[in-house]
Amino acid sequence: MSDPLVIGLDVGGTSSRVVVTDLNGVRFGTGRGGGGNPVAHGAAAAASAIGTAIDAALAGVDPGRILAAVIGLAGGTQMRKALDEVWPDHGITCPVRLVGDAVVAFAAGTADPDGTVLIAGTGAIAGQIVDRRLGLISDGHGWLLGDRGSGFWLGLHAVRAALADLEEGIGTSLTSLIRDKLIGQSVFGTRRELVSAMIAAAHAEPPVTLSRFAPLVLDAAAAGDPVAKNLITEAAGYLLRSTAAVRGPAETGPIALAGSLLTVATPLAQRVREELAARWPGAALVTATDGAAGAAWLAALSLDPSAPHPSTVRATGS
Amino acid sequence: MSDPLVIGLDVGGTSSRVVVTDLNGVRFGTGRGGGGNPVAHGAAAAASAIGTAIDAALAGVDPGRILAAVIGLAGGTQMRKALDEVWPDHGITCPVRLVGDAVVAFAAGTADPDGTVLIAGTGAIAGQIVDRRLGLISDGHGWLLGDRGSGFWLGLHAVRAALADLEEGIGTSLTSLIRDKLIGQSVFGTRRELVSAMIAAAHAEPPVTLSRFAPLVLDAAAAGDPVAKNLITEAAGYLLRSTAAVRGPAETGPIALAGSLLTVATPLAQRVREELAARWPGAALVTATDGAAGAAWLAALSLDPSAPHPSTVRATGS
Repeated sequence: MSDPLVIGLDVGGTSSRVVVTDLNGVRFGTGRGGGGNPVAHGAAAAASAIGTAIDAALAGVDPGRILAAVIGLAGGTQMRKALDEVWPDHGITCPVRLVGDAVVAFAAGTADPDGTVLIAGTGAIAGQIVDRRLGLISDGHGWLLGDRGSGFWLGLHAVRAALADLEEGIGTSLTSLIRDKLIGQSVFGTRRELVSAMIAAAHAEPPVTLSRFAPLVLDAAAAGDPVAKNLITEAAGYLLRSTAAVRGPAETGPIALAGSLLTVATPLAQRVREELAARWPGAALVTATDGAAGAAWLAALSLDPSAPHPSTVRATGS
Repeated sequence: MSDPLVIGLDVGGTSSRVVVTDLNGVRFGTGRGGGGNPVAHGAAAAASAIGTAIDAALAGVDPGRILAAVIGLAGGTQMRKALDEVWPDHGITCPVRLVGDAVVAFAAGTADPDGTVLIAGTGAIAGQIVDRRLGLISDGHGWLLGDRGSGFWLGLHAVRAALADLEEGIGTSLTSLIRDKLIGQSVFGTRRELVSAMIAAAHAEPPVTLSRFAPLVLDAAAAGDPVAKNLITEAAGYLLRSTAAVRGPAETGPIALAGSLLTVATPLAQRVREELAARWPGAALVTATDGAAGAAWLAALSLDPSAPHPSTVRATGS
């Protein structure tokens, strides 16, 4: 019989990633699909996006070899039923463990069982990790009710800043950038018509897609725009507040940073790192770029408690 | 030939109202339909809701007698094309003037040509009125980008307060009220599952419908709930700020209050009235309850500059 395999999934608001590995972390397949967050897209669309990513990861793999599966998902409870129908369609019959996206992000960043994870991508959440399970959480309330400091939050406030600039002249380079992205080069007779058209365009698409404007804010802040810099400061403040809500002042475990806003060099990532280092000087700040690999590792651990952490595999693999 | 008639429409986020009158303000028909705000519902659905209301108002009326039409609408520009197709369907061939909902609200509240209008219903906007046309405006940016202090804003922040109470124990009677409205009597194993279910339920419906929770906040504030009272104070602050953005400190024209939050006796209406009276002690505060009548009067004025204001008609009519 062939060696057992595991499958790990990381389902975010903008994309879903899947990886299939053996118990040593060697990759047998990877896949990527659209946003699978049920809060942002609805359970059926989320299940479909996840199915696409699974298909790609299973190309050339016998699904019968997969003996453990872990899926990390924001706001997961209401997805369980939709996902129950996805697995048999792909020939996967092993138990599937559904955990928070914070759990797989932390596992992707560190082999330690305890610590803190802070995610800022399309959404934002901070979580306490105890024995590789979620303890306290803060925010993760979705774009409508929370996700303060997230990519959605930055994008939304970039549009608000552009409107405030057009109406009150607050002065920001975001205005023309947002205008171009929202309505292109359309010409309007009055500034009020321009404002109305921008408002209508922003309301016309799924709100969560405003997160696509977050890079504009990061770039503008890097270039010195004061309004964008203030938004970065405010976003960092929300993320720090969420972290402090789940991590005591004396805790020493690693802090895993995840999500597109924190895993590449951005003014927000820099600011957040500085503030985390100032508040928890002893803590290791690790970056979690591959939540799917973290999920696969958690699945491997359930079969073999000595399964190596992905970072080890990457460091020593061929 | 029969006497000329006019038609007035007031299209809000939650309902659309239509009234048909003669030039003396005598009513020949009224109609009511669903929300017709294109930003909240899309242009096609808005046009359909308006058509339903027009149908009702025209029952028993020869549409050929209608010689002027005025429609008040929030964020109106992008509706013009959709509405262009509505009128011929109803046999209305006269010119149709499309104005902001603020213009018809002001006209409904006062016969004065100049002053200020403050609307807080599903949305929120303040407008300067000059010669019965819109001058400066403030907010009216829609639920996603603004409408601060509106019914949507109150409803959204009521849900946020309920989550903060469940997670941080801020203590508010809103929690059980919002929980009941969002998810009914469902029982959950953990508080986190309850929070997740409430978040999913809030995201599952059109965001603007959160405005249905605004009465809960008003009632809770009236009953002394401190969190609800703070929300009222904050909402009133936003509405006052918007008003001050369009009205100079020395202006003396009337201030027309419109929208469901300001036209009945609510803690928010009381607070706003007190603050307006304190800042503009000389100004008459008038209530505009019937925007459609204001629109019809503006239509009548276009045919007969001496057409009587609806308040006069009400006072002297049979």
